[in-house]
Parts: sequence; structure tokens; C-alpha cells
Amino acid sequence: MNKPTLHTVLSPRLLDLYNLENAIVVIIDVFRATSTIATALYNGAQFVYPVAGVQDCIEKGKALNAITAGERDGKVIEGLQYGNSPAEYPASFIKGKTLVLTTTNGTKLLHMALEQKAATVITGSFPNLSAVCNYLKAQNKNVILGCSGWKDLFNIEDTLFAGAVISRIKSQFTVHCDSSLMAENMYKLHQADRLQYIRQTTHWHRLQAYGLEKDLEYCVTEDGANIVPVYRPENEALHPETW
Amino acid sequence: MNKPTLHTVLSPRLLDLYNLENAIVVIIDVFRATSTIATALYNGAQFVYPVAGVQDCIEKGKALNAITAGERDGKVIEGLQYGNSPAEYPASFIKGKTLVLTTTNGTKLLHMALEQKAATVITGSFPNLSAVCNYLKAQNKNVILGCSGWKDLFNIEDTLFAGAVISRIKSQFTVHCDSSLMAENMYKLHQADRLQYIRQTTHWHRLQAYGLEKDLEYCVTEDGANIVPVYRPENEALHPETW
Repeated sequence: MNKPTLHTVLSPRLLDLYNLENAIVVIIDVFRATSTIATALYNGAQFVYPVAGVQDCIEKGKALNAITAGERDGKVIEGLQYGNSPAEYPASFIKGKTLVLTTTNGTKLLHMALEQKAATVITGSFPNLSAVCNYLKAQNKNVILGCSGWKDLFNIEDTLFAGAVISRIKSQFTVHCDSSLMAENMYKLHQADRLQYIRQTTHWHRLQAYGLEKDLEYCVTEDGANIVPVYRPENEALHPETW
Repeated sequence: MNKPTLHTVLSPRLLDLYNLENAIVVIIDVFRATSTIATALYNGAQFVYPVAGVQDCIEKGKALNAITAGERDGKVIEGLQYGNSPAEYPASFIKGKTLVLTTTNGTKLLHMALEQKAATVITGSFPNLSAVCNYLKAQNKNVILGCSGWKDLFNIEDTLFAGAVISRIKSQFTVHCDSSLMAENMYKLHQADRLQYIRQTTHWHRLQAYGLEKDLEYCVTEDGANIVPVYRPENEALHPETW
């Protein structure tokens, strides 16, 4: 039997070069959208609605009586209630609630994947690495690891997460993809010094200026929130699944 | 004094995210366009005309009484005379002649850089690594290392060359760019096993099927053709410069 394929997409700009129609697309936005989504759902949020714009976020929040969240330049966006930090969503606050979230990169890529008719969309981040890997191994379908990057630019942190997934599941997939080869190399190279290495990245310099160091360390630590956020088109939201 | 900046572009699709107007753009197409260009000029070709399409290539070849060259799927394109292998252009054949070359990836990126008003365009490859580095160090201008990739996809071999340049010249530049950080990591990781490592790449599998193994090994070997091909807009051709 042929193994399903696995590819890594390094920027939203490259997504349309891949066929998503029979594939599970994993949306990756390590700093911090997909880390926050996993954490909120793990801590008991019912659903997370990923929305593209601020106005969408406000309207959806009102309609659903939900928490609205989003940041630009390290500050909560005017008109929204909370930010994009996983630390804002402990169980004591988020359990049983719903969250409407808008972000610059991850949310955009998720909607692009839906437009390109992805068979299934889930989100991935270091806090839910093991759950994502268990899920992908169980499905036996083609996989696209989609790095959100930053304003369409390649970034290191999303690539490292793609590499972490590849290093754990590649034996079950056919991987003929230079991006995946590179991502796995980079993950293995920096597996031990990850916390130091991310301090060299562009995004670290950007977010560190806003005092978010603790957030960033949480976001590259494995398995703190092992749930799989699965997008259900019928209600346009991410639901938690245990794997 | 502020150092000039250095960025790496991993796919033609990402080129417009960068400002080229004050920058030297290094077009990189390791397998095999820019390796062939360096080799032909090093062996005494007067100029190389990089053209976008096959018809352009035929017409320019007639007008200039020049050699026409280009391949698709490992074979010389119908209507052209030679292929895209550096081995086809020894001094005994190419000295004093001019070459009109069309390729899938490198030529396209070069024309994109010109359209985006790059200040200067040169080509880079392992055979002319040292000359390119000497040239860039002497100019004191911003640098964009442009990887041609394959049909807009990321590839390993162009990235390794970008990393080789970065590892040699970075002390003279400000490098805040995750693509460059990754490229240098990858180059250093595979500096010693490069000939083995490239056998894992997608492009190797593609070209090896056409019996081009010797070509590919030459194309990842440093300093066999140390000349800098510099594009001169006034005659739309690459000229050899010694550095």
C-alpha cells in the first residue's frame, strides 16, 4: 500500500502550489495564535472561532456572547476584550466559554486553506505536539504542514514545529519535499538549545520588546496543552478532540 | 557607520516582499543555470544573455549569431542548439563566443529582480562562490540572496549556497532575517557531507533520472569558475568581472 504524502509549506504565499483537497492541513503559528488556541481549548473553552478581521471579531462576539480577542503590536486591539497570550486563558477563566480570535498570520492561513478546499483543517503548536502527531498517524491521509510565517515571510519557529512533527511521524508517510527535509534538519539541530536559539529569531526580537518572554518560552515547550483543535465547517469553529 | 543589510529570499514568490532598489541581488540557481553561466563566462564566453522564453532565445541567437541553449526535462529544447550543462561549455568551445540561455527558474527570477528595479543583478553558484563573496564585500551595499527554487517551491541546494555566502561575509552586514539564519545553519550542518546530502533532495531525484550526476557534483563544488557575472542593463547581458 502506498503511504500518504507529507509536505511542508513555508509561507502562505506558497500554499496554492499544493493540492489540499485530499489533505489534512495543520495550521502552524507558534508565536502565538495556535499555541493560544490549543491552550484555551485544553483549558475547557467550548469552541474557538478564528476570524479574519477585527469587525468580524466584534460582531461574532456579540452574536455569540463570546470573549473577543486579538492583538496588534503587543496590545489588545481597540474594541476587543483580550489579547493573544496563552497565559490569559487559564481554566479558571475560559472553562465553558467560547472565544473569537483574530490574528495577523495564523487566522489568515486557516481561511486560505478553507478556500483551497482542504479536506480537514487542524491547528498545531508545541503545546499540543503529541496530540497532533497522534491524530495525524491515526488518519492515514495526506498531510500539509502550513507555516503561517510573519506577513508572508518565512520564520524559524513555525519551521521548527513542522520539523518536530516530521521527526515523529515520517515513517508513516512518503516525504519528497525539500521544505520538510530542511524543517526536520533544523528541528534536530536545535532540539536541545531551542530556548536559546529562538532568541536569535526575528519574531523574538519583535515580541520581546513587548515583555512577552515568558509567553515565548511556553510556546516552544512541548505538550502543555495536548488537545487537537479540529475545524468544523458546519459551525465555522475549532473544537477540541482528545488524541 | 551602519552596516548594509543582507536578506535571503527563499522563493520567487516572496521577492516582492523585499526592497531591491538599493540592493545587489544575487540570482542563485545551483542546479544548474547559474553554475553554467559562471562556467561559460569563466571559460571565455564574452557575454551570456539570459532570456525568458524559447522564442526569445531563438530570435536573439539569430540576431547576434550566438549559441542558443536551454533544456526541459533534461533534453535540449527543440529549436535550440545546446543544453544547460556546465560541461558543455569548456574553453575550447565557448571562448570568444556569446551564449543566449533560457531556463525555467533562474532566468525568471533574474527578470523579476530587474522589473523590481534592483540596483545591480549578479549570479551566484558554488563554482564562483569566492568571487561572489569578494565582490559583495567590496561593494558595501545591501544584499539580497535570491533563491530561484523550482517552479516557485523552496529548494535545498540554492539555500545551501545562500548559507555559504552568509557564513563568509556576514560580519560586514546586518543580518536580521530568519531565512538567512536558517540558510547558514543548513550550510554549516551539511558543509562536510554536501555531496551525500544533496542526494536526498527533490531536484537530485529529478535530474539524476537524466544521468546528470557528474553535473550535479560539479555544481556543488566550490570555486571551479571564479568569475562574477554582472548584468549590464544597457546590453541586457551578463558580463564577466574578476574579483
